[in-house]
Amino acid sequence: MDLRPRDTDKGWKRTGYSIIFESDTRAGLLFDIVLLVVIALSVALVMLDSVRTVNARYGTYLRAAEWFFTILFILEYLARLLVVRRPLNYVFSWLGIVDFLATVPALAALLLTGSHYLVAIRTLRLLRMFRIFKLGQFVGEGEFIVMALKASRFKILVFLTAVLTLTIAMGTLMYVVEGGENGFTSIPKSVYWAIVTVTTVGYGDISPVTVLGQTLASVLMIMGYAIIAVPTGIVSAQMAGTQTTPYKSPAFKQVICHVCRATEHRPDAEFCWHCGEKL
Amino acid sequence: MDLRPRDTDKGWKRTGYSIIFESDTRAGLLFDIVLLVVIALSVALVMLDSVRTVNARYGTYLRAAEWFFTILFILEYLARLLVVRRPLNYVFSWLGIVDFLATVPALAALLLTGSHYLVAIRTLRLLRMFRIFKLGQFVGEGEFIVMALKASRFKILVFLTAVLTLTIAMGTLMYVVEGGENGFTSIPKSVYWAIVTVTTVGYGDISPVTVLGQTLASVLMIMGYAIIAVPTGIVSAQMAGTQTTPYKSPAFKQVICHVCRATEHRPDAEFCWHCGEKL
Amino acid sequence: MDLRPRDTDKGWKRTGYSIIFESDTRAGLLFDIVLLVVIALSVALVMLDSVRTVNARYGTYLRAAEWFFTILFILEYLARLLVVRRPLNYVFSWLGIVDFLATVPALAALLLTGSHYLVAIRTLRLLRMFRIFKLGQFVGEGEFIVMALKASRFKILVFLTAVLTLTIAMGTLMYVVEGGENGFTSIPKSVYWAIVTVTTVGYGDISPVTVLGQTLASVLMIMGYAIIAVPTGIVSAQMAGTQTTPYKSPAFKQVICHVCRATEHRPDAEFCWHCGEKL
Amino acid sequence: MDLRPRDTDKGWKRTGYSIIFESDTRAGLLFDIVLLVVIALSVALVMLDSVRTVNARYGTYLRAAEWFFTILFILEYLARLLVVRRPLNYVFSWLGIVDFLATVPALAALLLTGSHYLVAIRTLRLLRMFRIFKLGQFVGEGEFIVMALKASRFKILVFLTAVLTLTIAMGTLMYVVEGGENGFTSIPKSVYWAIVTVTTVGYGDISPVTVLGQTLASVLMIMGYAIIAVPTGIVSAQMAGTQTTPYKSPAFKQVICHVCRATEHRPDAEFCWHCGEKL
Repeated sequence: MDLRPRDTDKGWKRTGYSIIFESDTRAGLLFDIVLLVVIALSVALVMLDSVRTVNARYGTYLRAAEWFFTILFILEYLARLLVVRRPLNYVFSWLGIVDFLATVPALAALLLTGSHYLVAIRTLRLLRMFRIFKLGQFVGEGEFIVMALKASRFKILVFLTAVLTLTIAMGTLMYVVEGGENGFTSIPKSVYWAIVTVTTVGYGDISPVTVLGQTLASVLMIMGYAIIAVPTGIVSAQMAGTQTTPYKSPAFKQVICHVCRATEHRPDAEFCWHCGEKL
Repeated sequence: MDLRPRDTDKGWKRTGYSIIFESDTRAGLLFDIVLLVVIALSVALVMLDSVRTVNARYGTYLRAAEWFFTILFILEYLARLLVVRRPLNYVFSWLGIVDFLATVPALAALLLTGSHYLVAIRTLRLLRMFRIFKLGQFVGEGEFIVMALKASRFKILVFLTAVLTLTIAMGTLMYVVEGGENGFTSIPKSVYWAIVTVTTVGYGDISPVTVLGQTLASVLMIMGYAIIAVPTGIVSAQMAGTQTTPYKSPAFKQVICHVCRATEHRPDAEFCWHCGEKL
Repeated sequence: MDLRPRDTDKGWKRTGYSIIFESDTRAGLLFDIVLLVVIALSVALVMLDSVRTVNARYGTYLRAAEWFFTILFILEYLARLLVVRRPLNYVFSWLGIVDFLATVPALAALLLTGSHYLVAIRTLRLLRMFRIFKLGQFVGEGEFIVMALKASRFKILVFLTAVLTLTIAMGTLMYVVEGGENGFTSIPKSVYWAIVTVTTVGYGDISPVTVLGQTLASVLMIMGYAIIAVPTGIVSAQMAGTQTTPYKSPAFKQVICHVCRATEHRPDAEFCWHCGEKL
Repeated sequence: MDLRPRDTDKGWKRTGYSIIFESDTRAGLLFDIVLLVVIALSVALVMLDSVRTVNARYGTYLRAAEWFFTILFILEYLARLLVVRRPLNYVFSWLGIVDFLATVPALAALLLTGSHYLVAIRTLRLLRMFRIFKLGQFVGEGEFIVMALKASRFKILVFLTAVLTLTIAMGTLMYVVEGGENGFTSIPKSVYWAIVTVTTVGYGDISPVTVLGQTLASVLMIMGYAIIAVPTGIVSAQMAGTQTTPYKSPAFKQVICHVCRATEHRPDAEFCWHCGEKL
């Protein structure tokens, strides 16, 4: 879905688009940075507002600031609608939905009282940061991580299924072994405990008391200890693979020298490494 | 142990087998998916039933549903027995044992009162999920993880032995240093604490109080910190190895010397490394 | 900024410099080792002094020792100023600032009462240890880690931004779900909880109580479990890469094209990839 | 230090040595396995004895069993002394010291009352298990781990120094920020807290209460989160390197074909892979 205005569109629309949506011009980069600062400020204010002592003293100012930011974001949202080729394409794009959720419900929440914490959905807008990174050195890194994770998504899914089955089985067992008086009041709660344990978080809000329970917990912990190696291994291997593959065929020019039939030329090679012929 | 019915068996038996045991036909896949949903539902109900407030209000309905599911699973178990070539081969197969444990004891537990949580063994049936995955993209991933773990099983065993020796030694030491008044009431409990610590779970239900105890615990933690690198390193290296297998067959010429039957020649070898014969 | 005194400087200055700043002579190495021991001793004394029982009994002796060490460090600082080429270059170098902070504020803090814990900034001087390591086998290792971390710095930054966004979003959600009566008294505190959880530290000073909260926490933990794989994978891949560097120079022909000055030819290249010239 | 008896020694001595010290004969393997079971039993008894309820009921039996095992181990120790070439070489070997500590102090501890937990030093004897592994498939794995750890020992040392400096600096800071009333009663205790935090153990026996303290703790946790990647990366890279290096030059025959100058022959190659010439 191309959001870029047509070349036949009016100049202000094309300029507006390049400022608001792109960040490869001076003005566009400035807009994105200012926007990020405003988002961060807005999130910070909501966070501060939730602290009772701050709320008691500066509550009215903070509420005013929230109104100000919400109106600002609505204006921004409208501006975005104005400059894109087809507004609906933007509205239902991933970023468009996040932008909408960050403005309109916040307005509704401000009008009705109380639950103005919906504003916190704005945090997601901070991910917009990665769009700026696109400009610079970050593009490779971000894509690299996403690529490695994406390539491993089935491995990770299979792994999570196995972990979930393990925690449900272990949780039920511990519910039977420990029972409600030791904090394992229900199977869901015991499964919660098993997840807390196998991920090595270990709050200690629930912990086994009986000897059998502690033995089972020890087994679960050591399993978790061994298991934690799996996702790490997956991603490491994937990353190592992603990193070295550039050296393999995909990174080489997909061309065969018409003289000596040599392949695997540098991606930017203009001459055959084997016979010196022009490629 | 081949469970598949003979080609000379009646048509309904072969059709039944392909539906119940296989998942490469439309009906077979549907059967497996429905079965998984029913298993998940049954497990979810047992989990819900264990929550006191839910039990108090919907207990009778949940108990009825459990009866329903148990009978359903018994019927499924009988159907499986009917369509396989030799029922006993199925009964004593790994999946057959899990299926049995998930149905008959549940029935017994329902008839006698109280311990109906045995039903939770059904969770293990969820692993049947992986059989469906066999069909699609998951097969490689699942096998990949299993293969990597299997290849590392001795390394992991050696590692766990070392960790266990460490935790027993440290646990005993802490029992002597801290003593019962600080929670280290017995050596087994202290070993439990050492496992909780070295796996970085850290419940905090038992934690050192004396200066010497805290120093020893710090040493144990930092050791655990360094040690946790080992299984991860093992699996990572294994996975990277499995993935790139530079040393294994693919990197070698797929050719057998016609004189000395030697294999594993360099990919670009023109002569046998063993007898010097032209390949 | 070269701190080394000029060759035309007096002999005592050049000898002093080689003793105080370098560690490749016998005297220089001895000076550095003695200095490290004195720093470690001084840090140990401040640590001991903070223990109430020790302070009560040996307080006056410890205070005297601190005076002694502080004066010693001031003398050392002055000596350093004396032997370098341009004192200001040293004063504003990274090590110079650390040295200053470790002496003069300590003096001020000792003169004024109470906050003599500033002395603990001396701990940073222990990093001077790495300078000695330069001599021996450590140089490669230290540089190796620094290099791997440096090469991964953008990946790590991108990763931390993502983690921070996740914890802010999750923290806010938990604040709304759990509320102040369960310990989530403000959004900043909830974010603190989210960080404690996602890093698998899990103090348990704040932990979810409601069913929804525990479910969300479980999701966060399992995410953290999968996420922790990312930095490890980054560094592992980086280190494996740095170590084997299959794509870097060693794998390329160490030759520069005499026509176009291109480098990084295939190891078996016979012609320049850039201009086709015979190498 | 060769412990093996001379060929001129009496037959019973050589037979005894092969049974007690080696495990490549049927009798020797049996001896080692029985010994391991007895050690495990003895450790298990000490562990059980420390449980108050067990002690109260079976105390006298357990004490008798401990006497029995201690005498057994002393006999074993004397037998070992008898069959080795030079007893003193054995006494001062690593295994000899462990064997001594596991027997004589236990005897002393049993004669004097109370501290019979020294017996727990026997746990270390379980590491003798690895000697049996030497026989089978474990030899490679155990050596592999040891080799990888050994190759990484400087990296790990540098890393631990950095972690220690970080925890001392952070601990002191937190001591100043949080103060004694929040559990940070002294700098050593604060350093203990920092280690608990940075290793992601997180007992929660001490946890920050002030806003500044929680912020600093969050920074420390995220640092620990990133830092934990380093040792894992080191070992992973090391292991991957150890695993793949067999394919690199060291694993190849260090020989150049005198006809075609080809290198990198298989380690067991007898003929050049390139021209078929005898190497």
